[in-house]
Order: sequence, then structure tokens, then C-alpha cells
Amino acid sequence: MQNKINIGLIGAGTVGGGTYKILKENFSEIFRKTGKEIIVFALAEKDLKRAKEIVDDKTIVYEDAFDIVKDKNIHVIIELIGGTGVSKNLVEEAIKNNKHVITANKALIAMHGEELVSLAREHNVNLAYEAAVAGGIPIIKSVREGLAGNKIEWIVGILNGTTNYILTEMKENNLAFDVALKQAQDLGFAEADPSFDIEGVDAAHKITILASIAFGIPINFNAVHIEGISNLEQKDIIFAEEIGYKIKLLGITKHHHDSVELRVHPTLIPEKKLVANVDGPMNAVLVQGNMVGPTLYYGAGAGAEPTASAVVADIIDLARNLESTSTTHIPILGFIKDEIKPKKILLIEDITSEFYLRFSMQNESGVVEKIKQVFELHSIGIGVIVQKEIKKDDGIIDIILVTSNIIEKNINEIINEIEVMPENKNKIVKLRIEQLNS
Amino acid sequence: MQNKINIGLIGAGTVGGGTYKILKENFSEIFRKTGKEIIVFALAEKDLKRAKEIVDDKTIVYEDAFDIVKDKNIHVIIELIGGTGVSKNLVEEAIKNNKHVITANKALIAMHGEELVSLAREHNVNLAYEAAVAGGIPIIKSVREGLAGNKIEWIVGILNGTTNYILTEMKENNLAFDVALKQAQDLGFAEADPSFDIEGVDAAHKITILASIAFGIPINFNAVHIEGISNLEQKDIIFAEEIGYKIKLLGITKHHHDSVELRVHPTLIPEKKLVANVDGPMNAVLVQGNMVGPTLYYGAGAGAEPTASAVVADIIDLARNLESTSTTHIPILGFIKDEIKPKKILLIEDITSEFYLRFSMQNESGVVEKIKQVFELHSIGIGVIVQKEIKKDDGIIDIILVTSNIIEKNINEIINEIEVMPENKNKIVKLRIEQLNS
Repeated sequence: MQNKINIGLIGAGTVGGGTYKILKENFSEIFRKTGKEIIVFALAEKDLKRAKEIVDDKTIVYEDAFDIVKDKNIHVIIELIGGTGVSKNLVEEAIKNNKHVITANKALIAMHGEELVSLAREHNVNLAYEAAVAGGIPIIKSVREGLAGNKIEWIVGILNGTTNYILTEMKENNLAFDVALKQAQDLGFAEADPSFDIEGVDAAHKITILASIAFGIPINFNAVHIEGISNLEQKDIIFAEEIGYKIKLLGITKHHHDSVELRVHPTLIPEKKLVANVDGPMNAVLVQGNMVGPTLYYGAGAGAEPTASAVVADIIDLARNLESTSTTHIPILGFIKDEIKPKKILLIEDITSEFYLRFSMQNESGVVEKIKQVFELHSIGIGVIVQKEIKKDDGIIDIILVTSNIIEKNINEIINEIEVMPENKNKIVKLRIEQLNS
Repeated sequence: MQNKINIGLIGAGTVGGGTYKILKENFSEIFRKTGKEIIVFALAEKDLKRAKEIVDDKTIVYEDAFDIVKDKNIHVIIELIGGTGVSKNLVEEAIKNNKHVITANKALIAMHGEELVSLAREHNVNLAYEAAVAGGIPIIKSVREGLAGNKIEWIVGILNGTTNYILTEMKENNLAFDVALKQAQDLGFAEADPSFDIEGVDAAHKITILASIAFGIPINFNAVHIEGISNLEQKDIIFAEEIGYKIKLLGITKHHHDSVELRVHPTLIPEKKLVANVDGPMNAVLVQGNMVGPTLYYGAGAGAEPTASAVVADIIDLARNLESTSTTHIPILGFIKDEIKPKKILLIEDITSEFYLRFSMQNESGVVEKIKQVFELHSIGIGVIVQKEIKKDDGIIDIILVTSNIIEKNINEIINEIEVMPENKNKIVKLRIEQLNS
């Protein structure tokens, strides 16, 4: 029986520091749960000063991370440097040296998960990535194990805390996007270069991973349709609220008989749903199983300790299993190798959705009737139609309209027809609506 | 490699039927996730007619459940008859016959968990009980594994769907308790004898189990302080709402340095908290970890398929581990045997809490001042004080008061002093408040 587990930590950044802290401060508690002494045996970090600020003298510090993955005393490598360049090489080297790997790197798993999982299978080691999706929320475990008896029908998630913070501020404090972003940066909720977050790329990495483990399909980041929130106008947040909806940046994936939807975009959801009330930098994932119905998982999606909490959960899983003949009894992607089967990912034009549309029209009599006529000609139902007050300076009126379910390419045709009307004075705003019904 | 797993199902009731249904309808999906064919090999059910309605001809039906636990073809026994009598004997016999046991029986685990866990350890089999707490929500797995890196600081849960439905109806539709209970019974959300639910016993079973796996303490049902909702008056739900709170029946457990709180009672919680918006028959559990902060888990806490979803998750966990040298690598109660240590469970008199108090006083001048004076004499702060309208027929006025944090025995003293005042016309209502701050 192996009572000591030596961790090799790559990266002394936010999550690396958090992981070291948890393993140290909760050392006894973790021993109570595993019967193992889990220690950070070595840290790989170029910045030696930074390294020494974090670890004590007993911890070996490697300047070159390619040395740590070869260290024979180390059982588990934790990759926390991010990105898809050197981190990929390091994970590969660690696996080839028959070490288990834990990573918080969503980009790496979303973009190179397939080959890394194959390599891990080949070497009979585990590749764990709980921290890669929704930070401290144990959502990988919940989908892959807790809900394993279900066919998952769909998942929607608030998967990016930065954008959720910005959207909350835009709504609660009537801020424009730029102002809310600046505030998020000042408070440390957004990075200096926020594009990965605000353009939806980060959420797309995460929903890609969730889709794979929910449906048993290959990880396919290139197939995600991605729209961020940088073009979202504050007035649409307000108008949506007036008709009973909140706007959230959602990762959405749905399972159909012979296809899968995989998309990230700002979405109107009914304000009465629990997930609509997840505010600030928090994350939440709503999972619909064919037997359990809807379940929701909420918590901090980022930050040092919450993310490290997920890393340490993966360490504990490994520690509890090190005596097993196989440590990879839970398939890395939730499904056994031969049962992971590709499915067509629907183009965004081919999805069916309700839509929120906002038209900026010259306020002439009959303009609403003209819009309605276009919908009637296409036999498309209209659920709600609201005319906002007329702007005094230019006589332009906002008209809000909610459609029934319609294929996106059909709504695009209608939009094109209305956009060329002489009364139309601006680009028509189109947002998708999810009712989130079971 | 064992590719077929034979299940022995005891009980063809709601959850038994649901379990059979999931294993059948999701057979292929479960194979995709485990590589195993999992079938109900035999069913034990006294009512042969009922049994035949559920299972097909290939399934053996035992009239005597003590025969199924001895069947050498069966790898896993699922106990779904409930109660703590014969079910206990059956689980013991199954374990003694070296079979893994899965149960949805919260009363059994809460009242006899200690001895059953010991017996399972002795025989090196697993005893799984995900379905015993919060139905389809994978809360046992989340606390025991997903949050294992944390010291859990406290857990509060809406753990009983019947009472949450009743409280929701009382609030939303202005119903008295009796009316809402009758409605819950008519809709199948409450049983003919609802006392286990409405008196808080069911929630107490569940919070007892959660406290054990969260803190590493023995299961100790006898130590829970239990109050139900049958004495709750609708007017307190309304008054609470007016000052920003919702009333929920919560299971609460908190970890202190040398003691633990363990209690079930109607509780005021801030309406802005996500868990306050969990309505109808749904369950939710809010867990505070020392590193991850708060995480919340929401879903159906009862019903055939949701509960069976958790049973099947346990089956899949076992199926994925059957090749391991040890299938009990995750400690049954989350902590290794020698690290489960008793802690003093605080008497309810010794807990510290904010309180909501309602006084029914004769409307005489100075009556509010007299109440305030008692608090001042005891140096107890008052947060909110509201006088409701005077009832015309008897001139009695409701006075609502919210205290600062105070030890319960001290608030009891104050209540006793005020209760004997000549102006006091009724029993003083005392409800506890939880702010749910991180």
C-alpha cells in the first residue's frame, strides 16, 4: 500500500498557488479522506522568485518543466500553465513517462483532447480535467458519473464568470458594455486582454468538453458556433427584462436523433428559471437527463481556490484509486473508447429556435403592419410585439418582436427582407431564446 | 473481464419500477458508458401480480426476499422496500453473502448506517446510497468526491419535496397549511400519512447522512433537533416576505472547532439567495467548502425516475469498478475508518442564530417600548421591528422583530419574560434565520 503521493506541479500562477495552498492547509483533512499523504514534491516554474514565494524549502523547484515530467519520484503531474503550445508537449511527455496527468486547461482539452486521451489510454494512465469546466463546480463528475444512468438530452451553462459579471452589471446598474468591462477589469474579474472571455471562446471550450462527455461524441471544438457579448446593447437587456427574460451568455448543447447542437451566444431565458438568477461572476450548469429531468450545479467558475478545489478533487480520486489494478476504470470521456461515435454538428442556420428581434424603424403609420405581413407571408407566428417610445431627435422607433419556433435560416430570410425596407434604419438585432423546458 | 452484471432488485414499488425502467430503456447508453450488460436478473416482490406487471419473463421473481440475497448469480442487491425492519435484515444478509448493496433507504442509513458500513467493510463489499439523499441530485458523490479537497464548513438543504411544495403553495397562493397539504396529497406530492415529511423526520434522516460524510463524524440520527412545518402559520410566511425573507424547511449542519450543529426546522433565508428560489417539490443543497466557497446542487428529490437515476448511478459506479482489486476504494462514508471521529452535537439551546419573533400584543401605548426594554436589559440587538395593523375585533397587534445573533437559550429567556406580560395575548412565534453568507 502506497501511503505517500508525490505531486509535480507545473506553473506557480493563480491556480498553481491555490493548489499548493489547499494541499498544505487541508493536508490532514485530505489524509482523513484518502489515508494518503499527498505532497507537492516538485514545482516547475521559470520565475524562481515567484516559485520560492509559494513553496517551502522541501519542495524541489525545476526551472525547466521538461525535467519535472521525467522525475521518477513523481506519481502525478498537474499542468497549470494554460495555452496549447508547450503545455501540450509537457502533458504528452508526462503521459509517455507513465504519469497520471491532471489539468485545468480547457483550451488544451477542447482542442487536443482526442489525441491526449488516446495517448493516456495507450499508457494506461489517467487524464483528469475537472477544473477545466466551471471551476470549482464538480460538473465533469456529475455528468460522467452522477447522471450516468441518463441519456443526457441537453446542457446549458453559464460557463464564463467574466461575461456573467459584465451582463449582471449592465442590467443591475444600467452600464454600457464598455463601462462594465472596465469595471470587471478593475476588480480582477476580467483580464487585460479580455477577448477569449467576452467573445465566447472560453465558454466554447467548456461546452465542447461537456458535449463530448454528455453524448459520447468526439471533442470537436472547430464545430462550435460562437458569438460573444461585445456587440450586445444595454437596451436589449432592458427590453428583454420588460417581456420577462434575462440575457445570459450560454454554452448550449442539445442531442437529437442524428445530430447535435453546439453553440455559444447571448441568450434570452425566462427570468423565473433558477439559472436566470445566477448573477455576478458565478457559474451554473443546467443538465437535462431523460430520467432525472433537470438538475442544476452552481458555484465559482474561476479564482485560485475554487479552481484548485477541482484540481485537488482529481488528485484525491487518483489517490483513492492508486491501489486498483486499473486507475482508468471510469472512461476519461465518460464513454468507452469504441462507443464514442461522431455525430453531425448542426450548422447554426439549421437549428430551430425562438427569436427576439429588434427593429429600428422610421415611425411611419403602418410600419408594424408591414413587418407583420412579412411574417404572415412566411407563415411564422409572432408571440409578443412591443413598440417602444419614439426617439424625438430622429423619429426612429424600436419595435421588439418574439417569434415562435423557426429554423434559423428562415428567420434570416425574413430579416433580410425587412432590412432592405426603406423604413428600416439600422441593423436588425437578432437574439436566440431558450425556454429551458424539461 | 466480467461483461455481464446481474442485479437483484428487492421491491417493485415506485423506485423499483423506475430502476427497472432505466436499466431497460437506457440499456445501450449504459453499455456505452460501462462496457457492461447490466440486467435485472431477479426481483423479490411478495405481490406476484405487481411483479409481473413490471418485469419480463426472463427475470426470476422471488416471493421471499431472503432467497434473492442468497442467489449466487447475483452480483449486486438493490434494496428498495424502505423502513428499518426487514430491509435491515435483508441488507445484512446480502452483505454476508458478499454482495454489493445499493439502497435508497435514508431511514436505514440514518438509523443503522454505522453497523451496516462496518459489516460492508468486513466483507469488502460496497454499500452505496446516493438515492437516499435528495433523490436524483448526485449530492453524495459531490460532497464525498467532488468537494473532497475542502473542509466542509456547513451544509443547508431543502431536502424534502413535500414540505417545499406545501410552503410554496402557502406563499404563492395564500393557502393555509391544511389546505396546501390536502392539495399536495391530491397531486401525489404527499403521502396519505404525511407525518414523516411534514414533521421533518425525512429531512432529518438526510441531513444526518450529509453531516457524516461532510465532517467525518459517525452517523447519529438521535442527535438531530427536528421541527416540522405543521405549526407554521401562513401569516409568518407573509410577514417574512415583507422583510425580505422566504421560509423554507431546511436541514442544517455546521462544523465548529469542537462541535457540530445538526438540525431541521423552518428557517428564514434572504429571498435574494438562489436557494430561496427553489420552489415546488424540488430539492436543493447548498454546500460551503473552505476553498471552493458555496456550491449549490438542484433537482428532483423524489419520484420514480429521478430517484432511480441515482440508484443506477451507483450501479454504474460499481460496474466500472468490478475489475479493481478493491471496489471500496472510496470510503463508504467519505472518510477512512480510523479517521471518523465523534464530535459533540450541540443542543439546540446552545446554537447561535438570528431570530424572527412575532408577538401578539394588546395594542396599548408603550407596548413596543416594553418589548424593546427587555431586549435592552439583556443587551440584545434588534435589527428590524415592524408593527402590523391592529385587528379590529380584539384590538390585538402583531409585532415582528428580528434579532442580532444570540444564543438560543438566551432568546428563550427573553421570550419567557415577555410571554408573561399582561399585554401578551398569545404564544410568541420564534423562527430561526440563516443569512447563508460564505
